[in-house]
Amino acid sequence: MGRLLITNARILDVSENGDSVAVRTGQDVLIDGNRIEALLPEGTADRSQFDSVIDAGGMLLMPGLINCHAHVPMVLWRGLAEDVSIERWFNDYMWPLENNLQPEDVYWGMLLGLIEQIEAGVTSVADHYFHMQLAAQAVEKSGARALLGYAMFGSQGLAMVEETARFVQEYQGAANGRIRTIMAPHAPYTCDDDFLRASAQAAKRLGVGIHIHVSETTDQTVASLARRGMTPVQVLERTGVLDVPTILAHVCGATPDDIRLLERYPVGIAHAVKTYLKLGQDTAPVVEFLAAGLPVGLASDGAVSNSTLNLWEPLRLMALTQKQRARMGEAMPIAQALHIATRGSARVYGMPDELGAVAPGYLADLILIDLSGAHHQPLHNIPASLVYNLQPGDVRTVIIDGQVVMRDRQLLTIDRDEVIAQVVSRMERLSYLDPAKRIQTYA
Amino acid sequence: MGRLLITNARILDVSENGDSVAVRTGQDVLIDGNRIEALLPEGTADRSQFDSVIDAGGMLLMPGLINCHAHVPMVLWRGLAEDVSIERWFNDYMWPLENNLQPEDVYWGMLLGLIEQIEAGVTSVADHYFHMQLAAQAVEKSGARALLGYAMFGSQGLAMVEETARFVQEYQGAANGRIRTIMAPHAPYTCDDDFLRASAQAAKRLGVGIHIHVSETTDQTVASLARRGMTPVQVLERTGVLDVPTILAHVCGATPDDIRLLERYPVGIAHAVKTYLKLGQDTAPVVEFLAAGLPVGLASDGAVSNSTLNLWEPLRLMALTQKQRARMGEAMPIAQALHIATRGSARVYGMPDELGAVAPGYLADLILIDLSGAHHQPLHNIPASLVYNLQPGDVRTVIIDGQVVMRDRQLLTIDRDEVIAQVVSRMERLSYLDPAKRIQTYA
Repeated sequence: MGRLLITNARILDVSENGDSVAVRTGQDVLIDGNRIEALLPEGTADRSQFDSVIDAGGMLLMPGLINCHAHVPMVLWRGLAEDVSIERWFNDYMWPLENNLQPEDVYWGMLLGLIEQIEAGVTSVADHYFHMQLAAQAVEKSGARALLGYAMFGSQGLAMVEETARFVQEYQGAANGRIRTIMAPHAPYTCDDDFLRASAQAAKRLGVGIHIHVSETTDQTVASLARRGMTPVQVLERTGVLDVPTILAHVCGATPDDIRLLERYPVGIAHAVKTYLKLGQDTAPVVEFLAAGLPVGLASDGAVSNSTLNLWEPLRLMALTQKQRARMGEAMPIAQALHIATRGSARVYGMPDELGAVAPGYLADLILIDLSGAHHQPLHNIPASLVYNLQPGDVRTVIIDGQVVMRDRQLLTIDRDEVIAQVVSRMERLSYLDPAKRIQTYA
Repeated sequence: MGRLLITNARILDVSENGDSVAVRTGQDVLIDGNRIEALLPEGTADRSQFDSVIDAGGMLLMPGLINCHAHVPMVLWRGLAEDVSIERWFNDYMWPLENNLQPEDVYWGMLLGLIEQIEAGVTSVADHYFHMQLAAQAVEKSGARALLGYAMFGSQGLAMVEETARFVQEYQGAANGRIRTIMAPHAPYTCDDDFLRASAQAAKRLGVGIHIHVSETTDQTVASLARRGMTPVQVLERTGVLDVPTILAHVCGATPDDIRLLERYPVGIAHAVKTYLKLGQDTAPVVEFLAAGLPVGLASDGAVSNSTLNLWEPLRLMALTQKQRARMGEAMPIAQALHIATRGSARVYGMPDELGAVAPGYLADLILIDLSGAHHQPLHNIPASLVYNLQPGDVRTVIIDGQVVMRDRQLLTIDRDEVIAQVVSRMERLSYLDPAKRIQTYA
């Protein structure tokens, strides 16, 4: 770590309210340890006071992207559940495949997914999965930042709430603070009220939040109303889940009443639109969420539904599909989309004052993007190019918590070949499919 | 040119009817001049009979992609008309900006767009624009394949039909046959019936097809019904346009009757879904087109609406949006999407027996794709990875008409730096905006 100086960058500056975006030049970025110390006029900093200097050569400097909802280790199975409905995706593929999962698989799957994320400039991830001690080890090794939740189902019994609460306590603040933890009951349709209530109580007791799937589809909202007389969002309110800072994954089936209800609680919404499209579902009412003042962040979900873990695709798809949904080319303008990708995602992730901006006092989670590719030329409009033209491979250098983890596309913390070899060696065992052996059933 | 041998590739094989897709190994591809001579069991070809050998090292070999509808030189203005409706896009931006266009701009804009296309594995383009002699020079230099149409509006008068017919005659078969030509009236809403009839007659006389915009939006269909008592598609039928092989760009506003009508004519549909989404419009009923037996091909449209010219984005977006439109994850399966990207596009482009497959007798328009990236790993399902994971930068080597035009991402025919410098030097003049000076008006 030490002191790092970044010169000669274009710096992305998204306004706090998301109304405007600018690209600034002429400023050096001074990093001390894991934080941005100052932005000074170019050339005024004393270079002798820095351990290293990065000349950005006109590249764009912006905050690292934050993945607000993922199951990173699921990359182990990507490509194995294609062209199916959500019912078949769960019952015929995903939940039988997860029956094959061994703890050590999580370590290697997490590392593979973290490689893909780092290579695409994703510096933080809110991950919701199993065997999370192994995921934490992978995060520690990679240098990434993560908010880890140990997924649990109501069928596992209330003892599981206490078991995952112990994980939350043990790993809170690990890896120099890069790891934070959160309680992670799976969803209202897989956890009964008592289980949700116990999860919320544990979260309150531990001073952490909750990360949960809710109203993934309109059908789930309809089914919940028929079965329980209330929407999944109302179930979360009644069981106390919304009283702690909560990441709500998806909420595609939110009703107008749900949105009004959510305004009163400290929630953020993780939006993983590629998955919704792939499964043939409605997308979420993002424009309405924003109008209600609800924070929205980008998400990749798992790679078995989403195929990829970069966040440039959900950014672009969100803007495109919200324009189409509104039948207005003016909807979801570029500044708003980039606000969601930066400050909005930081708020959903729970670190709005430390992530999502290139500003003094913020953590040094930064990426450098090469705009010299033919697909960006000529550079009439850099913010537009970030939303609509960028390819993940344009990310050249990635800094997390003050540490350079990728430089000129060379990974510095992870042995890429070893990770891929480990994952490939597990492919046959992991892809064994017996639909009678499911870890859960989707009804 | 000469004789080229490609060994050690995985070869993409999409069935003729689009029902299935396979990845074959163990075959060498023998190229003689500009055509594929044979596929032979690996190691059986006599290497001494080849001028060069490419060891693909396990990369995927597939047909080069075919862009069925573009205005490539419009890359000159990309980023200058963002977050707007189609009306404002035309009237406040595009048509005033095109007032600045000089013939030589077309040469440099075409080259910049061809760089982007070649770097993304796009080997052919059906381009519809102005000053096409200059576009043809750029195509000749780049080594690309193109079907060029000189765009014209009814307001230019019938003499323009004869002028562009002369372009069609002069450039037909140019550049060793890589250049073909086509008549290109702009659209039913910018050309009256006499102009369309004259265009169709010229096409018949010259033995070529027509490339035209039609029913870009549902609003255009509604407006045409109100104004002329028939849909834009019916206007094309009545004026004889459909009697020649015709590329119909978009047809998002096709009615069920339009689809039944089109079944009787030699038409193909170019699908540029990223543009539709960006302008906040409905997408086209692609699933219905396919059910009616109409060929569909991928398209980028121009980069002022579409931002980019690669075809991996429209491929992915088409599959995703058709699934969502059908509210069925099973809709637009991977094999069907890849059929559209290869054989379907070749049919729309008018060369179904020479492009779109890796097979003996086909032209050697081939690309090699690196699947070793973390975003493809592990390789459970290569066809899925092509549709849902690929980044344009994964294309490593591009062969067009038997000539290697990009090798290991190094362009061999175009001086990238010179082209970008030329385009940048024109930026200021080209971006001057006076909305009172439009080349046309969109009503």
